[in-house]
Amino acid sequence: MTPAQFREEGKKIIDWIADYYEDIEKYPVLSQVQPGEIIGSLPESAPQKGETMDAMMCDLDEKIMPGITHWQSPNFFAYFNANTSFPSILGDLVSSGLGVQGMIWATSPAATEVETRVLDWLAEMMGMPESFKSTSTGGGVIQDTASTAALTVVIAARERATQFQSNEKGLDKKLVAYISSQTHSSLEKGIKIAGIGKANLRLIDVDENFALRTDLLEKQIQQDKANGFVPFFICGSVGTTSSTAIDPIRELGEIAKQENCWYHIDAAALGTAMICPEFRHFIDGAELADSYSFNPHKWMFTNFDCNVFWIANREELINTFSILPEYLRNKATESGEVFDYRDWHIQLGRRFRALKLWFVIRHYGVEGLQHHIREHVRLAQDFKTWVDESEDFEVVVKPLMNLVCFRHKASDESNMKLMNTINNSGKMYFTHTKLKGQVVLRMNIGQTNIEERHVKEAWELIQETAKNLS
Amino acid sequence: MTPAQFREEGKKIIDWIADYYEDIEKYPVLSQVQPGEIIGSLPESAPQKGETMDAMMCDLDEKIMPGITHWQSPNFFAYFNANTSFPSILGDLVSSGLGVQGMIWATSPAATEVETRVLDWLAEMMGMPESFKSTSTGGGVIQDTASTAALTVVIAARERATQFQSNEKGLDKKLVAYISSQTHSSLEKGIKIAGIGKANLRLIDVDENFALRTDLLEKQIQQDKANGFVPFFICGSVGTTSSTAIDPIRELGEIAKQENCWYHIDAAALGTAMICPEFRHFIDGAELADSYSFNPHKWMFTNFDCNVFWIANREELINTFSILPEYLRNKATESGEVFDYRDWHIQLGRRFRALKLWFVIRHYGVEGLQHHIREHVRLAQDFKTWVDESEDFEVVVKPLMNLVCFRHKASDESNMKLMNTINNSGKMYFTHTKLKGQVVLRMNIGQTNIEERHVKEAWELIQETAKNLS
Repeated sequence: MTPAQFREEGKKIIDWIADYYEDIEKYPVLSQVQPGEIIGSLPESAPQKGETMDAMMCDLDEKIMPGITHWQSPNFFAYFNANTSFPSILGDLVSSGLGVQGMIWATSPAATEVETRVLDWLAEMMGMPESFKSTSTGGGVIQDTASTAALTVVIAARERATQFQSNEKGLDKKLVAYISSQTHSSLEKGIKIAGIGKANLRLIDVDENFALRTDLLEKQIQQDKANGFVPFFICGSVGTTSSTAIDPIRELGEIAKQENCWYHIDAAALGTAMICPEFRHFIDGAELADSYSFNPHKWMFTNFDCNVFWIANREELINTFSILPEYLRNKATESGEVFDYRDWHIQLGRRFRALKLWFVIRHYGVEGLQHHIREHVRLAQDFKTWVDESEDFEVVVKPLMNLVCFRHKASDESNMKLMNTINNSGKMYFTHTKLKGQVVLRMNIGQTNIEERHVKEAWELIQETAKNLS
Repeated sequence: MTPAQFREEGKKIIDWIADYYEDIEKYPVLSQVQPGEIIGSLPESAPQKGETMDAMMCDLDEKIMPGITHWQSPNFFAYFNANTSFPSILGDLVSSGLGVQGMIWATSPAATEVETRVLDWLAEMMGMPESFKSTSTGGGVIQDTASTAALTVVIAARERATQFQSNEKGLDKKLVAYISSQTHSSLEKGIKIAGIGKANLRLIDVDENFALRTDLLEKQIQQDKANGFVPFFICGSVGTTSSTAIDPIRELGEIAKQENCWYHIDAAALGTAMICPEFRHFIDGAELADSYSFNPHKWMFTNFDCNVFWIANREELINTFSILPEYLRNKATESGEVFDYRDWHIQLGRRFRALKLWFVIRHYGVEGLQHHIREHVRLAQDFKTWVDESEDFEVVVKPLMNLVCFRHKASDESNMKLMNTINNSGKMYFTHTKLKGQVVLRMNIGQTNIEERHVKEAWELIQETAKNLS
């Protein structure tokens, strides 16, 4: 494909995407295909000869689109947000076009330095502790997902707890880690990968708001120490996946300091809200944390993948992950004046992901981002009020932010049937969880293009469907 | 930004990218900036108000571009290829536009099923063993990088060796792994992360072609067993990073079977060549492997990130990484009829990366891909002949494929000076390694848009610069 052909084909695809967003509400939000339908529609072998872009785009429309669940539809209320936005798509497009490797500073200095600067911007925008800035002892790095960030920090904590001997000699201490029963599954996955073992991960029970109970944590730590275990890691969640519960961030930090544990704050879904000063009380005590992560690719209008991960003492991270094969040796690295981000995470290769974040922040501006976050929270609180006012539904846990956990006053089966009936209609898509053993419906309100009418129509549809089912 | 504005801004960026590729040879290949230059040119705080795309694109040109090293320039011969191509950029653009999450089948069935089908295509295109196909016991999955693939497989191997007890109780066996002294650093990183410890990773010495010596491997295994260690993992490289050495794939597989070790083949850079049947003798014995990975984001014209990872027995992978929190429960998963790719790797979230691979394979066709690979190998062999014919330079190791390791017949310092002088001129960019303690210059020939003239001019520049320096 020549540049001239790329101009032509590229513009067609830009139009295709614009058309998609103009028509997005016409698609069934949840894909209605059955297992095997898509794969069965595709040839069994790759073509021998090249094909035209027109042929590919035609297949995209006819064969692929029926298998898409429309995460960017304003009628998508499921799971969590995975927002994109036009400026983000364009920033990512520039990154694809440049096609540079930012594994070390020397392989494309701008990829590293823009990332460092943009993550310092974000730290400031969110009222993060000074230590998380690159100008202090710490700094930020973009990871692909919060799962990888969680694994990264578990490994760094393991190395701190073993004086970097696990990397060298293998793990031989009885380390134990502490999370709540509501903490994201990625922490369990990280603990397993790190060789620590699920049996050495303590799931501390939660209070009535599904926040970690520090009294139980302290008791468990004392018991573990008495049994010869070494507590090494505590994770506090700012917004659990099931119900947006918020752990007591300061108290956890104080316990972590006292017990010499690494303290990580996982704010994957909710972190974006810290752009608004009125929500920062949720992270009061963040200055006690060793690390903090959140996902702009959830609520901050930045397309996947883009997790932001800050560390208070970057030396610990670099000492954990540093490698330097001969073929990557260079003057800049040896001078110590630059960051080589490959030493801040698991991967070696890395794309110029900071560009999309730079585009998003500059396009919206701090005030624009604040506006959208506040609007989403307002819509969720409206929805909560409507549920409160209805006779047939109830709110299960007070919604702190933009997720409303509620249920039809009926059996678990009825609630699942209600949800599945609505989802199968294609008109909207929402999902469930279990809290205290009970099925709970989740309305997650925060899609990039959501307006009040979408939330109102969703509530009407839920009520109407419930009536028809009963 | 409205869809109408996106049409306008998007088309400008398509033109910007086309212009970039038309002008790419005018840029200095290696960025000439000093540490801190880029970051110093950017504001210290994020803007409060939103800015225009024009302002951002202007900063991109003026502030960012000087900090870019041009990996997509046909005069880029450094490190390894990190090729992109126009069809790949467009496939990735569609993926950004759709913005779907493919973490499980149910969250967007097409994202899973296109990936499964395209990886089966690739397995067939490359003469992979039947067991690697989804229609058999195995299957393929896209990982971000070969580093992550390496970690994934180390963990799966650890679990096999400990009857899945390390995940549960933590690692308490004395496991040992085997690679060569030339194997990629990602294996060492994976072994450390897995809690096995660098001390339990044996770096087996290599022969005169820098391939792993199986006689030394067998000796080491026997010695380890006698000392109470449990051998659990062997990695064979098809194309080492330094010199494209190829380990004895079949022999390693036989030893692995005999010693009950997991056998992984790392073909990160060279794997693409298997599209051409005449190169498949390099992977003779691949049917003995438990897993295999290569990077379409290196030599296969697919932009980063896109590592392809095949496994012979997917159950082992799924049993290692599976998680199922309540909020992700769904009918399709419970039916067992679908793949949930989150259980095939470390991350939970995943973007629709198969689209770009689908675009690339269909655009080029198998024959088109073969044509480019053969052309790159031919150009590298020509370069090798020119070096052989010169009096002042020598080939250090016979180039098997598209990487030529050579040196000026002079001191290490002279070779480094030669390389740095050329790189600082901006006319081309190539890098070095050390083989047998000696500095070696590397010409990696395989950029998407490379033509014969680029290789000829590079060789002339190298000769001329050497003359001027001596």
